[in-house]
Amino acid sequence: MGHRLDDVSAPARLAAPDEGIGRDELALATRNHGLPLEALRYDITPPGLHYVLTHYDIPYVPDDTEWQLTVGGLVRRPLRLTPADLRAFPRVTTRVTLECAGNGRALLTPRPVSQPWLVEAVGTADWTGVPLRLLLEEAGVEPGAVDVVFTGADHGVERGVEQDYQRALPIGTATGTEPEVLVAYAMNGAPLPPQHGRPLRLVVPGWYGMAHVKWLREVTVTDTAFEGFQQSVAYRLRQHPGDAGEPVTRIVPRALLVPPGFPDFMSRTRVVRPGPLPLEGRAWSGRAPVTRVEVSADAGRTWQEAELEPAAGHRWAWRHWRSTWTATPGEHTLTARATDADGHTQPLAQPWNRGGFAVNLVQRVPVRCLDEDAHG
Amino acid sequence: MGHRLDDVSAPARLAAPDEGIGRDELALATRNHGLPLEALRYDITPPGLHYVLTHYDIPYVPDDTEWQLTVGGLVRRPLRLTPADLRAFPRVTTRVTLECAGNGRALLTPRPVSQPWLVEAVGTADWTGVPLRLLLEEAGVEPGAVDVVFTGADHGVERGVEQDYQRALPIGTATGTEPEVLVAYAMNGAPLPPQHGRPLRLVVPGWYGMAHVKWLREVTVTDTAFEGFQQSVAYRLRQHPGDAGEPVTRIVPRALLVPPGFPDFMSRTRVVRPGPLPLEGRAWSGRAPVTRVEVSADAGRTWQEAELEPAAGHRWAWRHWRSTWTATPGEHTLTARATDADGHTQPLAQPWNRGGFAVNLVQRVPVRCLDEDAHG
Repeated sequence: MGHRLDDVSAPARLAAPDEGIGRDELALATRNHGLPLEALRYDITPPGLHYVLTHYDIPYVPDDTEWQLTVGGLVRRPLRLTPADLRAFPRVTTRVTLECAGNGRALLTPRPVSQPWLVEAVGTADWTGVPLRLLLEEAGVEPGAVDVVFTGADHGVERGVEQDYQRALPIGTATGTEPEVLVAYAMNGAPLPPQHGRPLRLVVPGWYGMAHVKWLREVTVTDTAFEGFQQSVAYRLRQHPGDAGEPVTRIVPRALLVPPGFPDFMSRTRVVRPGPLPLEGRAWSGRAPVTRVEVSADAGRTWQEAELEPAAGHRWAWRHWRSTWTATPGEHTLTARATDADGHTQPLAQPWNRGGFAVNLVQRVPVRCLDEDAHG
Repeated sequence: MGHRLDDVSAPARLAAPDEGIGRDELALATRNHGLPLEALRYDITPPGLHYVLTHYDIPYVPDDTEWQLTVGGLVRRPLRLTPADLRAFPRVTTRVTLECAGNGRALLTPRPVSQPWLVEAVGTADWTGVPLRLLLEEAGVEPGAVDVVFTGADHGVERGVEQDYQRALPIGTATGTEPEVLVAYAMNGAPLPPQHGRPLRLVVPGWYGMAHVKWLREVTVTDTAFEGFQQSVAYRLRQHPGDAGEPVTRIVPRALLVPPGFPDFMSRTRVVRPGPLPLEGRAWSGRAPVTRVEVSADAGRTWQEAELEPAAGHRWAWRHWRSTWTATPGEHTLTARATDADGHTQPLAQPWNRGGFAVNLVQRVPVRCLDEDAHG
């Protein structure tokens, strides 16, 4: 028997109805990580609490100064830039809420077998870098440009295809200003941590994480639509394996709440005591600004309007919201939902697709309110 | 029906033989995280790649300057110290490899249901702080001291017991110099990140993570042995539920290797091409210095001695090792094992206990070596 790449990967599959998380999903869950939900309290997510999803290995880059970014393809003046060269361009800092396209996947039935996120694959950071449009201007894009392809240094195999991680944006998006795409070299004022793309990554405000190519090495302008694995096979919204599917692009609206009270270690059930309780959380949308957050203490049967803090000029960052709930002894399910200026909101029943992408099913937080005099 | 604390927690249990990882275990795996194994390349683990395990919520501490650490109990001069006060004491920096006591748990059959680590719950940092013995000297420990109890600010419920996280050390260990216990305020030269105990944590070199109490608020000297939940119920090595069990203390030897080649996204199987391949990794023991690392490419049937780098004075940190392997087309299982100066080594068959603690079963890395001419 031969030993070939196409034997290495198992086909994509859905879990059986009662199938627990498998060893493969667990291996992804232990190396990638979500935002512990209590960290929704921070405007800017502290390093190490921001979600991380890496397809292959985190490249080992002991010396940033030797890194080179090329800008080529359909351009008049191909560029070769070091991180120091990039710092000579005008710098822009943008606060961006980044969410994994697979967030919510593990709540689906049937569950697509992949990185098993519940609701926590999110984080917000101040990203500093050069607007991509300035680099493309410097290189001089030729007429006829269709896509801009971004190549990272992370290398692996997926469904039998050996690849460097690659994604593309349409030329209009790559050179646009709403959002303004960045080639970022700093996160929260410090050099990028290795797991966030050190030394360079793309930041595409409002888009799911798969577009923000990390460990960025090449920017290539093409005159045809990019059809690489991560563009045309992965990250498509499909109902059936044979569908061409719609591409996954911008982030759909979502609200999350900071679980109140304190947790049981194992079940993560929240414990509170009777009386009024402040609730708070964050809400975001990459489609249009969030205009409304509602909270429910009865699993979505009735809703109460939350108070949404001003956006403070950060169009691409989550917004803080607060509300109050009067807890009474018994079991409750708290939930919240965001609505954006386009009228998009979050479903109470799962919006299923085979890849488990762009799932914004509402968060459900089970809370146990103790009796007035309960001390365990 | 009443709503009491003892209804909140489910009893400890073992998974059924074919039971996949449950929603409760997954909720822990998505918020806590391990070291991505390629990060074993770094002497000091970059922030955000070091493993994290939090029992309850990460406390929210917006202003460090208001934090107070008390030193009390059986002492002549109780102390109340701010982080700034601690910086006035002599400072010590110690490089420490920290491992979770539950590392390896999810590899056990039957699997204890808890945080489901495979092998990655480890990391190495330079911790800076005040030797605990200097604080206890300043407070003046009275005769008859037995234990020193450490209380963190993280609050939750576990098996029906509401608690702040608390652990104790015997007075001799707390005031000893081998290892020297620290009250740390910096990690790798920066203030502690929230998830690592900001603003103060205990560091007990050589001991499993449960001893390194984070968000440290109280140090209390007692004249009786501490019998709190995390000391006498959790973190015991038991074969049967009714056993008193031995306490979990120091880290048993372990070697891990950086998985060679590149991964398949989903299975994490490693792919290499035929020929000589450098192998490298780390090895550590909290019992006695590591003196030997061996590598096997046939799942432990035959072993080859690895080259162990000098310890460079960091007694409590992992040591780097390297070896070479000549890959031939086919499927292989790489493994490594560490032996320490006391002759302790790693088992090839699981050392089972009900809590899944101190499990140093060898790592097994499946590798697929392609045919010479295979290109997928």
